[in-house]
Amino acid sequence: MFRPQIKVLDCTIRDGGLINKWQFSDDLVSKVYDALSRAGVDYMEIGYKSSEKYFSRIENGAWKFCCEEDIKRVIGEKRGNMKLSAMADIGRIDACDILPKSESVLDMIRVACYAHETDKAINLAQHCQDKGYEVTINLMAVSKVIERDLDEALDDLSKSSVPVIYLVDSFGAMYSEQIHFLAKKYFGAMPGKELGIHTHNNQQLAFANTIEGIIAGINRIDATVYGMGRGAGNCPLELLLSFLKNPKFDIGPVFEIIQELFIPLKADVEWGYHIPYMITGILNEHPRSGIKVMSHEALPSLRQFYEDLRDGTE
Amino acid sequence: MFRPQIKVLDCTIRDGGLINKWQFSDDLVSKVYDALSRAGVDYMEIGYKSSEKYFSRIENGAWKFCCEEDIKRVIGEKRGNMKLSAMADIGRIDACDILPKSESVLDMIRVACYAHETDKAINLAQHCQDKGYEVTINLMAVSKVIERDLDEALDDLSKSSVPVIYLVDSFGAMYSEQIHFLAKKYFGAMPGKELGIHTHNNQQLAFANTIEGIIAGINRIDATVYGMGRGAGNCPLELLLSFLKNPKFDIGPVFEIIQELFIPLKADVEWGYHIPYMITGILNEHPRSGIKVMSHEALPSLRQFYEDLRDGTE
Repeated sequence: MFRPQIKVLDCTIRDGGLINKWQFSDDLVSKVYDALSRAGVDYMEIGYKSSEKYFSRIENGAWKFCCEEDIKRVIGEKRGNMKLSAMADIGRIDACDILPKSESVLDMIRVACYAHETDKAINLAQHCQDKGYEVTINLMAVSKVIERDLDEALDDLSKSSVPVIYLVDSFGAMYSEQIHFLAKKYFGAMPGKELGIHTHNNQQLAFANTIEGIIAGINRIDATVYGMGRGAGNCPLELLLSFLKNPKFDIGPVFEIIQELFIPLKADVEWGYHIPYMITGILNEHPRSGIKVMSHEALPSLRQFYEDLRDGTE
Repeated sequence: MFRPQIKVLDCTIRDGGLINKWQFSDDLVSKVYDALSRAGVDYMEIGYKSSEKYFSRIENGAWKFCCEEDIKRVIGEKRGNMKLSAMADIGRIDACDILPKSESVLDMIRVACYAHETDKAINLAQHCQDKGYEVTINLMAVSKVIERDLDEALDDLSKSSVPVIYLVDSFGAMYSEQIHFLAKKYFGAMPGKELGIHTHNNQQLAFANTIEGIIAGINRIDATVYGMGRGAGNCPLELLLSFLKNPKFDIGPVFEIIQELFIPLKADVEWGYHIPYMITGILNEHPRSGIKVMSHEALPSLRQFYEDLRDGTE
C-alpha cells in the first residue's frame, strides 16, 4: 500500500507509558526518538501534556507532563523531518498551560475526549491551533457510544476548524466491518476532514483493523514499537511499516530498538495478548478489570471472570 | 456472524504437535477432547496419519501416527457430536495404511499437499473417500504459487470428487485483500465445492484473515486453542468462537483448558508473535529459518536476519 498521503504516528512512549506511569529512562526515549527518525516515521508522540496541578511528579515520569526542558534534555537538537506530538486529555490540562508554539519543540497537540466532551475538546484544540500547533481530536471509546450521540459529536466536529479526527477503538472491541462502517460514517459526516485511526489489540485485530482503516481511506495511522501499549497494546509499528510500501520508511531501525530495548522491557512490563484483555475486548469493556486480574499473584478463574463481566456481576 | 453452515475444526494437537513432536500427555489430549466437545466444536483434528515406515516412534509422539489404539485409549468412548479428523501428508503415508472407516474412530481425513502434488492428493483423498471417510484437500503454501500453476491445481480439484478444499496461508504472509482475491478465485474455479480456511499468525492476522474468509463465504474454519501452532501459531479458537454467534458454541470450556493446560504449556513450548516469525511472514518464507533463529541461546541481530532473508543471503 503506497499512498504518499499516509502519515504514521508512533505513540509508544505516550500509550506505553500508561503501563509504567511513563517511567522510561532518558536513554530509552532518546534511542526511540533516534530510531523512529531514521525509520521515516512522521510523528513521534512523546507523552501526555498534563498539568502538575493535577498529577504528581513523584508518581509519574516526565512523559506524563512533556515539559520543554525534559524534551530538550532527552532529544537534544531536533534532527530530520520527524515531528513531535503530545496528547492532552480533557480535564487534565488547562489551556493556560499550553505555551505558544514559538516557545515549544512540540509540533502537534492531539486532544483526546469522550463523545460527551466533544465541545470542550474543540475548545481546547482551537486554543492550541491559535497558539500555532497542528491539532487533532481523538474521539475515544466510540464502541460504547449510541449512534445518535456519535452523530451529534461528528456534526460538532465537522463545524470546527480541527482538520484531523481519529477513529479510536479504545477497547479493542471492533471487527473489520465496524471499522468500515465507522470510517464511512465519519467521512460522510465530516466532509473535508482528514481521518486517523488508533486501535487496540485485545482481539489480535489492531494491525488488521488499521489495514482496513487504510483501505477505507484513512491516512493518519497510529502504531507503537512492538505493539507496546496499555493492556493488549496497539498496532505494532514494525508490521505497519512492512505493510506500507512507501519508500520513505525503513523498518531496520525499528528491529534494532525492539531487540535492544523492547524485548527486554517486555520481560518486566506486561502488554500483549492475554485472556483477561481478550475478554474485556470481546465484551466491549474498558481494560481496567482485565488489568486488575492480570495484576493478581495467581490468575483467578478466567471462565468466572468472563461470566461475571458478561453478566455485569464483576 | 451466525451462519449455521459454518463448521469449526480445532487442530491444536495436530498443528501444535509440530512444535513438540506430538509429545503431549494423554491427560492433556483427553482434556482437550472433552473441552472441545463441550464447546460445541465440530471437528477435532487429533494429529497426523503417518506411517511408521517413514517416522520413528521414539522421536515422535502418538499423534504423529494416530493409531486406533492410541486414540481409543485417550478418548475412551466417543461422546457428543464432535467428529475426529487426522491429516495425511503426501509421501508420508501409503494408501494401504488407511483402515476402512468401519474399523476406525476417525471420521475425516484431510490430505495436505503442495500445488504440484495435487494429483497425488486427489488420488489419496479419493482412496480415503472410497474407504468411507469424509475428506478434504488442504492446498498449502499457495502464497508462493504462481497464478497459472494455481489455476491448474484448482481446475484438477474442481473435477475431483473431493467436496471441501482449504485455502491455506502456510507462511502467514497474506493480507485481507489476498484472502478475498483467493476466496473469489477458488469459488469461481470450483463451483459446488465448499471452502475451508487455515491461517498462520506471523503478522498477527490469523484471526483477522479468518474473519475475512468467513465474510467471503468460507464455511469450514480452522483454529487452535490459545493459537497454539508452529512458529507464530494459528487463529485462536477462543477468538473465533467469540466472533461466531452460533448458539451451539460455548467458549467457557475453552477458557478452562487455556488456564489449566495451555498457559502453563506456553511457558515451556514456544509459539506466538515473535520478530523472527514476523520476518518470515512479511517476506513470504517458510518459518523454518525463523524457528532456527528462535532456538539460539542468544537471539542474533534481527535486522541482519531480516536483511539476509530479504536479500537471499540467509
